[in-house]
Amino acid sequence: MTDFFKDIPEIVYEGTDSSNEFAFRHYDPDAQVMGKRLEDQLRFSVAYWHSFAWPGGDPFGGQTFDRPWFGDTMDHAKMKADVAFEMFRILGVPFFCFHDADVRPEGDSFAENTARLQEMTDYFAQKMETSKTKLLWGTANMFTHRRYMAGAATNPDPDVFAFAAATVKTCLDATHQLGGQNYVLWGGREGYETLLNTDLKKEREHAGRFLTMVVDYAKKIGFEGAILVEPKPQEPSKHQYDYDVGTVYSFLKDFGLENEVKMNIEQGHAILAGHSFEHELALAASLGILGSIDMNRNDYQSGWDTDQFPVSVPEVAVAYYEVLKAGGFTTGGTNFDAKIRRQSLDPEDLILAHVGGMDVCAAGLKAAAAMLEDGGLERMRDERYAGWDTSDLLGMDLAAIAEKVEREGINPEPRSGRQERLENWVNRFV
Amino acid sequence: MTDFFKDIPEIVYEGTDSSNEFAFRHYDPDAQVMGKRLEDQLRFSVAYWHSFAWPGGDPFGGQTFDRPWFGDTMDHAKMKADVAFEMFRILGVPFFCFHDADVRPEGDSFAENTARLQEMTDYFAQKMETSKTKLLWGTANMFTHRRYMAGAATNPDPDVFAFAAATVKTCLDATHQLGGQNYVLWGGREGYETLLNTDLKKEREHAGRFLTMVVDYAKKIGFEGAILVEPKPQEPSKHQYDYDVGTVYSFLKDFGLENEVKMNIEQGHAILAGHSFEHELALAASLGILGSIDMNRNDYQSGWDTDQFPVSVPEVAVAYYEVLKAGGFTTGGTNFDAKIRRQSLDPEDLILAHVGGMDVCAAGLKAAAAMLEDGGLERMRDERYAGWDTSDLLGMDLAAIAEKVEREGINPEPRSGRQERLENWVNRFV
Amino acid sequence: MTDFFKDIPEIVYEGTDSSNEFAFRHYDPDAQVMGKRLEDQLRFSVAYWHSFAWPGGDPFGGQTFDRPWFGDTMDHAKMKADVAFEMFRILGVPFFCFHDADVRPEGDSFAENTARLQEMTDYFAQKMETSKTKLLWGTANMFTHRRYMAGAATNPDPDVFAFAAATVKTCLDATHQLGGQNYVLWGGREGYETLLNTDLKKEREHAGRFLTMVVDYAKKIGFEGAILVEPKPQEPSKHQYDYDVGTVYSFLKDFGLENEVKMNIEQGHAILAGHSFEHELALAASLGILGSIDMNRNDYQSGWDTDQFPVSVPEVAVAYYEVLKAGGFTTGGTNFDAKIRRQSLDPEDLILAHVGGMDVCAAGLKAAAAMLEDGGLERMRDERYAGWDTSDLLGMDLAAIAEKVEREGINPEPRSGRQERLENWVNRFV
Amino acid sequence: MTDFFKDIPEIVYEGTDSSNEFAFRHYDPDAQVMGKRLEDQLRFSVAYWHSFAWPGGDPFGGQTFDRPWFGDTMDHAKMKADVAFEMFRILGVPFFCFHDADVRPEGDSFAENTARLQEMTDYFAQKMETSKTKLLWGTANMFTHRRYMAGAATNPDPDVFAFAAATVKTCLDATHQLGGQNYVLWGGREGYETLLNTDLKKEREHAGRFLTMVVDYAKKIGFEGAILVEPKPQEPSKHQYDYDVGTVYSFLKDFGLENEVKMNIEQGHAILAGHSFEHELALAASLGILGSIDMNRNDYQSGWDTDQFPVSVPEVAVAYYEVLKAGGFTTGGTNFDAKIRRQSLDPEDLILAHVGGMDVCAAGLKAAAAMLEDGGLERMRDERYAGWDTSDLLGMDLAAIAEKVEREGINPEPRSGRQERLENWVNRFV
Repeated sequence: MTDFFKDIPEIVYEGTDSSNEFAFRHYDPDAQVMGKRLEDQLRFSVAYWHSFAWPGGDPFGGQTFDRPWFGDTMDHAKMKADVAFEMFRILGVPFFCFHDADVRPEGDSFAENTARLQEMTDYFAQKMETSKTKLLWGTANMFTHRRYMAGAATNPDPDVFAFAAATVKTCLDATHQLGGQNYVLWGGREGYETLLNTDLKKEREHAGRFLTMVVDYAKKIGFEGAILVEPKPQEPSKHQYDYDVGTVYSFLKDFGLENEVKMNIEQGHAILAGHSFEHELALAASLGILGSIDMNRNDYQSGWDTDQFPVSVPEVAVAYYEVLKAGGFTTGGTNFDAKIRRQSLDPEDLILAHVGGMDVCAAGLKAAAAMLEDGGLERMRDERYAGWDTSDLLGMDLAAIAEKVEREGINPEPRSGRQERLENWVNRFV
Repeated sequence: MTDFFKDIPEIVYEGTDSSNEFAFRHYDPDAQVMGKRLEDQLRFSVAYWHSFAWPGGDPFGGQTFDRPWFGDTMDHAKMKADVAFEMFRILGVPFFCFHDADVRPEGDSFAENTARLQEMTDYFAQKMETSKTKLLWGTANMFTHRRYMAGAATNPDPDVFAFAAATVKTCLDATHQLGGQNYVLWGGREGYETLLNTDLKKEREHAGRFLTMVVDYAKKIGFEGAILVEPKPQEPSKHQYDYDVGTVYSFLKDFGLENEVKMNIEQGHAILAGHSFEHELALAASLGILGSIDMNRNDYQSGWDTDQFPVSVPEVAVAYYEVLKAGGFTTGGTNFDAKIRRQSLDPEDLILAHVGGMDVCAAGLKAAAAMLEDGGLERMRDERYAGWDTSDLLGMDLAAIAEKVEREGINPEPRSGRQERLENWVNRFV
Repeated sequence: MTDFFKDIPEIVYEGTDSSNEFAFRHYDPDAQVMGKRLEDQLRFSVAYWHSFAWPGGDPFGGQTFDRPWFGDTMDHAKMKADVAFEMFRILGVPFFCFHDADVRPEGDSFAENTARLQEMTDYFAQKMETSKTKLLWGTANMFTHRRYMAGAATNPDPDVFAFAAATVKTCLDATHQLGGQNYVLWGGREGYETLLNTDLKKEREHAGRFLTMVVDYAKKIGFEGAILVEPKPQEPSKHQYDYDVGTVYSFLKDFGLENEVKMNIEQGHAILAGHSFEHELALAASLGILGSIDMNRNDYQSGWDTDQFPVSVPEVAVAYYEVLKAGGFTTGGTNFDAKIRRQSLDPEDLILAHVGGMDVCAAGLKAAAAMLEDGGLERMRDERYAGWDTSDLLGMDLAAIAEKVEREGINPEPRSGRQERLENWVNRFV
Repeated sequence: MTDFFKDIPEIVYEGTDSSNEFAFRHYDPDAQVMGKRLEDQLRFSVAYWHSFAWPGGDPFGGQTFDRPWFGDTMDHAKMKADVAFEMFRILGVPFFCFHDADVRPEGDSFAENTARLQEMTDYFAQKMETSKTKLLWGTANMFTHRRYMAGAATNPDPDVFAFAAATVKTCLDATHQLGGQNYVLWGGREGYETLLNTDLKKEREHAGRFLTMVVDYAKKIGFEGAILVEPKPQEPSKHQYDYDVGTVYSFLKDFGLENEVKMNIEQGHAILAGHSFEHELALAASLGILGSIDMNRNDYQSGWDTDQFPVSVPEVAVAYYEVLKAGGFTTGGTNFDAKIRRQSLDPEDLILAHVGGMDVCAAGLKAAAAMLEDGGLERMRDERYAGWDTSDLLGMDLAAIAEKVEREGINPEPRSGRQERLENWVNRFV
């Protein structure tokens, strides 16, 4: 036991009348929602990187956080793990996620990285024996180190491709050892800074080959979790190949991976790509590739990845509406890819940010469930398309349709889309 | 002969020393560039809608242009055609493009629309006998009329789908009759205003079926031009399905159309989707689906489609660089999907806008050709990827690569991406 | 009585348990909030232009609404007024707002415009005798007609300036006659399309002179309402002079009008300028120039003015928090500068959009009041600045401060900004 | 002499036919342009921070550059200075700029910072005796250190205000000692992350007082350079008080500083605020507060400060057009607030980036001068406003104007704004 969170109690559900900042007002893990415990619907996960590895820097400033575990030794890494698991316990979260670089100091070679990752994996495994918190997913950080400055799988240098591929192997191994339910690939620098030095076609093929290798290796070792790709349009790169769900789907189709790989969709990344979060979720669901979500909030007016904790129940509700409509999470969950602001220096800030985020998500998911159970939205949507139930148009050709339109004098009158009415409907539940 | 452009002479090439506003300074149609006449490289086209059908309105104001051909009769439509062909002659453009709704007044029924379109098609055919100007592409306007307010192919009402399909048939017929070299589909309102009333999956399937019908009908009538889809991310809709090249490609793959359909890529639409124009061109080229371009310029800071004439030679040059690298246009060309500002009231504004745009494109394409002939950029790009020429990585699996990295102690040092050097290189030519 | 809204009842408050779409769930006009009736806090107003004058067009499509009052005659104008007052009655709104061009058909001359406006003003005056609905503000439409295409007060042509000035006189007269509580100027096209043809300095001076004339004339006729300027950064123009609150304040200071003119702040315009709505409200309040609000919602991802009805209670709550903290509205109010979507064709859509918007605002204002009464946010804010209560720094000079810092070894430790904690606090109330 | 740039020669002008990457093609320092040497028109300056202090990090990655002077000792700082002055010599730049934190390691106290800055100031002074390179401006870095995380002048903690004020004193002293021609204040974190914890009014007043202190102290020590404020809308903060030129002007007016302070305008910051660079320059010129420029280029589609070297002659030309029209630089100059990409690892990248940027600026300024000397643009602009030369409208009141409009039947016809014609005109020169 460290004393980092010393006076902070385990957070319990007290209901909406509570004014206790260190209690849940909406998140009752045991409440039944659409046939499952709320905990099992939301499947909350803490992101190791933001909460324990980020020093608080931004492009114009350095470290703001003073954490006793900041340092380059394995002892620091273990203290970090100890604090992390204490936070998991305080919050009662069922999952966490990590990159290799979050949990072990960078070594001087691949071999040293591998050994350190193994040591930390074993350390985690030991801690997990007495913790309720499981691994939602693991991943490899292939964007921070300077070797990856021009990409990992899409690097012009095959040695970097090799280093990256080898690193993913070790991270998949670690994820598998810890019983991770998914493995995620976010293509941090898989993209370009300038087209002038970039062979788009070659890089795309390398990315496809890399992903295929990952899928194959996961099968080989018997990893039964899902392989997830996380789209993002840009930042750090000027352009990133995994722009959005639509674009990634085109990759998957090209390399025959559409049944092997699913999406890890982040609110902030969706926003940066010009989409709403619910759009990306709905699109992925309609394509059969919805996997998991990175829950956060991007400031709509800051053109970079702000990774804030969610605060808006109405926004979160329409996102979970798509998740629940698609059947809810299977291997996926709600990972808080969110960081406290760099001015939020105190240990309690870290706890309260998660408490607030979990409550917002709980309220949002409950509202989403209530809307689905009410059924009004779906009924109105179905009515709008009812004409298709009896139509034979899709089996005809253009000439036959033209002949029919002319013969029958078809001249359709538009009907109201009723958007405001539907928005009001939603507001009854959020 | 109308007297709309009465005092304006045919525009001829006078060279860069000329200060004659009514002359080309860069566009010499007969100059040889990369083995073709410049006219045959650029394949300029005038867009009927912006130049002859747009009244000058914007969301906060109405008509500003006073044109003698504005009106609802077929006589007006023919006067419009007369003026259009006079402008084509003055500019010496080899092509034009049109929507059905640009060239004929809206009728009260599909039958009336069809008859009017046929009458105007015949009128065009007659004019084209004595004009050098050919049809680059035809298309159907399926977004202006209120029947299309909720989409055409993706409308919830099958009668609208039918009306749209029938209309495309007539527009394909007209395009075919006039020897059009392409047929374009821009999904103006194929998308949604709110997900709340939208069945994304159903609409996507209808869109796929519609496109398949178009491809089939084109074959059936012996149309040998290309079928082109034009991506745009939003506006007028909140979200449009043909978001960008990557997204459209995923459609084509899903419906097995990737060898049947190509892209018509617009600068402004690329910008609105968060991409550079050259990115969308390069991506389409790498996927084998680059068809034609809609040349214009979107104000980077106005969040709507500004459709301005291009003014920046450096920007245009890097776009044509991708076109030329991909082998240049075959059926495609450079269509000015650009409109004069609503304050540019005079007939000479219409001419000068095109003269300026043509000169910018000519200067840009010549610079692009010079860069390709110089070869420096491609040489530096190839050097960057040279390591892959002798690499066997792509045939290995993750475990073998990891073993190799560990055994050989691979620990790559990054090499300069030389972006500024490449940018300077480009600046020697533009 | 027209029968446009025939079956729609007057909307009454039924409370949050109601599932009646035609009832208020949050807006109880008679509820007491911070010492006033809720109706008197919110001071709702319907915007004549969006609800009754807009035909449903967008840049890619024409009229979608079929309204019996669309037409160019004075009879049409009066039927429109009849329907408007019926809607006011159904909604129970205490205010409305209008432009001259919303309420009368455009005439062939200034004299005809004036006469028509007078006739409609008299017609309104008569209707208002038996209505509870008053005039929140009047204004002149100086952006739709082609004469204003290059601006009104800032037009290069003094005749346009004159026409505009004369028109404002008539609109001020009408507003005064109807007991309007404010007069608004929105500089629709006071800005430029290109700097190349614009004399920024001259136009700015003309704008200042124009505004001074308006203030002087209002005094002269004994108009005791507030004169309000409404900022917007762009659209329709590339750049508009009244960019945001800060920019307008610099105008007011330059022309000595900072005590004569206040701001009418719109959510959508704030967003387009890169600010949050609450920022613009807080800034105006801190400068003593907060006047009134145009309540709506701009899609954060559509780069144009979407003017949607508000749907998010959390967003609205933080806006009203600034309004209430500044003392609440005096002459100002909550004008719905919002339009139903062009697909929302039915009369009930118009009613339901307002019902939903009013409920969102009522819930938001009540939450804001609760936060202020709770006092926690203000207490935490005050604590953060408490050091200044006893500081004498502001009376010193740089050299003395430097001497003090060195002597006392001042080396400040940062303290947590507690952002997430404050966000959670807000979420207890919204 | 270090050997960092060992094989790189001094860059000389060779003209546009040269294909030597290490030569100027447009920048001939001795060429006469509008009555001055080109060097004296452009007044190029190198920014110490980007070229010598930035390690190459971004929000997703750490250091990429290996520089022998990276380190925490005064010896490192002096080696950095040696290399910097070698680059100044190679480029032949007449100026440089620096923050205190760029040139000296951070100390443990204000006293240590002061002593180190003094030591480096003396070191610079010595180097400048044998260099042609002078100091364009100095400034204090009040945003990197964690003490400034909540602002400097606007910090809630008066001790931070004091530390910042003391620091500015030392930086002004250093700038004065070195003969700096300006002193710049960029309010890096003068703004907020969330309004919830911010007292906007108090912070604004503190900022005003701070700026007044700076102006007073500069006078007191006899500093005759200009005091410049550099606007930026956001990043790192969510909102920054010095949003844009218009906003800063409102500050200056409020605190009576409009004759004491001028603007340092950056292309990238203008862009992020939604303005064109030329707009901000023109506005500042029209308000009499144009001081200096930070030349760079922001990617229009990356929503953060990309600080790239300029590459577009047409864009740069219209910016210099405003500078020259305002009379050219006096104390100000062209500071490259631009950084090489983090992948541009080689010493030659640093040189070539500046060579390219200087050439683009030289070509742009020469084009701007040619446009002014041609006079066509100004003539067309003047014609547009000619009506005002004989108008008495500005001396009238609304009622008199209305009477005149009615009596004279004023009904203005709009005239063409001729935007495309003017754009073509510009393209003859760029």
